[in-house]
Amino acid sequence: MSKLLVTDTTLRDGSHAVSHSFSPEFVGEIVSKLVAANVPIIEVSHGAGLSGSTIQQGFSTHDEWKLIESAVANKKDSKIASLFVPGIGTRPEIITAANIGIDVLRIAVHCTEADVTQQYFEQAKKSGLETVGFLMMSHTQPASVLAEQAKLMESYGADCVYIVDSAGALVPEGVRERVAKLKESLSINVGFHAHNNLGLAIGNTIAALEAGANQVDGTLRGLGAGAGNAPTEVLVAVLNKMKIETGINLTILMDTAEEIIAPVFQYPLVIDRDNLAAGYAGVYNSFLLHVREAAAKFNINPVSIIEELGRRHAVAGQEDWILDVAIELAQKQLVR
Amino acid sequence: MSKLLVTDTTLRDGSHAVSHSFSPEFVGEIVSKLVAANVPIIEVSHGAGLSGSTIQQGFSTHDEWKLIESAVANKKDSKIASLFVPGIGTRPEIITAANIGIDVLRIAVHCTEADVTQQYFEQAKKSGLETVGFLMMSHTQPASVLAEQAKLMESYGADCVYIVDSAGALVPEGVRERVAKLKESLSINVGFHAHNNLGLAIGNTIAALEAGANQVDGTLRGLGAGAGNAPTEVLVAVLNKMKIETGINLTILMDTAEEIIAPVFQYPLVIDRDNLAAGYAGVYNSFLLHVREAAAKFNINPVSIIEELGRRHAVAGQEDWILDVAIELAQKQLVR
Repeated sequence: MSKLLVTDTTLRDGSHAVSHSFSPEFVGEIVSKLVAANVPIIEVSHGAGLSGSTIQQGFSTHDEWKLIESAVANKKDSKIASLFVPGIGTRPEIITAANIGIDVLRIAVHCTEADVTQQYFEQAKKSGLETVGFLMMSHTQPASVLAEQAKLMESYGADCVYIVDSAGALVPEGVRERVAKLKESLSINVGFHAHNNLGLAIGNTIAALEAGANQVDGTLRGLGAGAGNAPTEVLVAVLNKMKIETGINLTILMDTAEEIIAPVFQYPLVIDRDNLAAGYAGVYNSFLLHVREAAAKFNINPVSIIEELGRRHAVAGQEDWILDVAIELAQKQLVR
Repeated sequence: MSKLLVTDTTLRDGSHAVSHSFSPEFVGEIVSKLVAANVPIIEVSHGAGLSGSTIQQGFSTHDEWKLIESAVANKKDSKIASLFVPGIGTRPEIITAANIGIDVLRIAVHCTEADVTQQYFEQAKKSGLETVGFLMMSHTQPASVLAEQAKLMESYGADCVYIVDSAGALVPEGVRERVAKLKESLSINVGFHAHNNLGLAIGNTIAALEAGANQVDGTLRGLGAGAGNAPTEVLVAVLNKMKIETGINLTILMDTAEEIIAPVFQYPLVIDRDNLAAGYAGVYNSFLLHVREAAAKFNINPVSIIEELGRRHAVAGQEDWILDVAIELAQKQLVR
């Protein structure tokens, strides 16, 4: 197989786990380390993508353009990517990010809504960017539906489409089916983005590779939404053992994860009851912090909110349901 | 396939992670919860097995027979297992444990030393026990060697042989090869015991099932040596998603892990640099606490001790090498 492309998204998905508090200096330091380790693609932006700093998604402590400028200033031979969620971001932000010097735009939508991405892929291409399509919450749809959606993205100009396990809800056979179907249906690269709610961030990433994935994501120490992501340093260690070539220096990653990333954790990334419940019920990981806040406010078990959101098939963008559900459950408790 | 047999070894492998400090009351409480959740086999003993409470393995705070008595008193329809390592334990302990009322003896040796287990399997059978053979550090040998060793254990009376990934060093393809070879070579059950150093405790356990394993291990919240084990509650959630029948109640496991086990953790079980280095170098997980102590004492990086132990192919029982290596490395630093 050709060389596997690893994207480190500590500075994007990890943003969720530190309340979007990365500073330009911190971004510069981490990008320098990732560049020194020869990581080919480094994603930097608010956890919810360009323009994600809002009351609904959580405000960033620092201007996003300053973060991206700092990343670009340190990128050397690596590529800088940013996430873009249509509706949260708009076309002018794509142009600004491209002007600052990012290389890759990763356009993320719920996995049945590829049709809204056309103008953004076209803008990204017009701005000279490589493009990735991100099919979020991929556990909710069978492989055939995902393949149709991915083909739409390919037709709009995507250079790669990712199966994104936003809820950490897939098991290896589900990953293999979905990745294999995309590989069979597309002529572009296929990627996989994992979360660890079921303890399968690394296991599912390996399953994706076994099914032919060309690109995969990690974050240092697994820093990310919910139970976190596939830790990049662990992933590279496993790939080395499997003799899959990445060109990445493991020691630099291990030291950076231990010495610079571990100290900024705001809470330990473990598979606790809430994270497991989210993976089991298939609820979007970025909801979890808001679920815990709502549960504390109304004195109810977060698991009951998570289970109800699962029953309602809540997707990204429906964060306002969290409070609705919490209030309803609290009222039911009062009635009892 | 026939029903998968899950063994929870929180009260044995988890013992390593709490400095062998379980009390009879705690053992009784956890066994009651596991029994209520319908876990078929529950392992209870010092982390290093019967008679493991020594200066080399770490002293227990409580008499091991009291722990086992407490487990047996609460077992109802579940079975109580104990670990037994020849050389650490001797035949009289097997007789005592059987008299107290354990049901299963799990006899563990380095994966090339099955020939020392004959008298212990024979004693266990004579004492009316079910038996499991544990091939530790299975990553160090190819499938064909492990199959020969497993066949010896079968000939001595083993009812099941486990591939034990003591260092958390195997990747899924390595697990599948080894389990498949044992399945092909034996007429008894085949099991798999995971550690999470490479983030693959759950992924490898699923790979073992895909290759035909009939028995697997977990611990609540992953409590165990090194980076910990496959968390039993996560494993059951994944098995439910895969429609693999275990008969186990997930909610009771999730609540017990969150409310009773998480509070007794002495340190967070994460894949830190040392744990990852151990998995990558293939070093026995039970060494890690001793490695950290030695590293602190001689002011050297634990990773350098781990890498050197890996180069020397240290196996369980060679704990005394840790200090030797630490002293040598400290002397080299002085010479520089």
